[in-house]
Amino acid sequence: MNLLRDLPGASTGEISERLVASRTVRIERIVSRGEVSPPGFWYDQDEAEFVVVLAGAARLGFADGDVMALGPGDWVDIAPHRRHRVEWTDPGALTIWLAVFYR
Amino acid sequence: MNLLRDLPGASTGEISERLVASRTVRIERIVSRGEVSPPGFWYDQDEAEFVVVLAGAARLGFADGDVMALGPGDWVDIAPHRRHRVEWTDPGALTIWLAVFYR
Repeated sequence: MNLLRDLPGASTGEISERLVASRTVRIERIVSRGEVSPPGFWYDQDEAEFVVVLAGAARLGFADGDVMALGPGDWVDIAPHRRHRVEWTDPGALTIWLAVFYR
Repeated sequence: MNLLRDLPGASTGEISERLVASRTVRIERIVSRGEVSPPGFWYDQDEAEFVVVLAGAARLGFADGDVMALGPGDWVDIAPHRRHRVEWTDPGALTIWLAVFYR
């Protein structure tokens, strides 16, 4: 199984696929093409999230003021309840994320 | 922080770096250049392991007879105590793995 192939076709919004789920961990591939979080929306999660961009380009914003531009190989470990949003993903290419949600 | 840059220099064996550790999860970057498991050695782990090759090429062998060739984007989820070994990594290039050990 390959994270960079078998991609969803014509995008109708961001697509998440669950690869692994245990009592404590979820691993997902997320594919975006230009999607961003709605204005004023923040993710505010009970779980920590380790996320890496495998392809494409994106920008995360954090309620604490940080902004993070991410390209292939860039990763960030987001603490539980650290509010964040997707400010930008490349509208001209697929952005492929691998996300590990954990406790 | 970037998984594809800031690589260990002249290899003196496989190098693992812990990126994240919680009570239930460890996330590591592993960089190999031609290293393989010693003859007769099998990993036999209490934890499950999700592992993806980010760059390079490798081959895993399993005690149950499976052999898996892995290139960029290829992943496998290895159940606890499913015995496995690294049969081959490309001796001519760095192989970069992202491994998530979980319960």
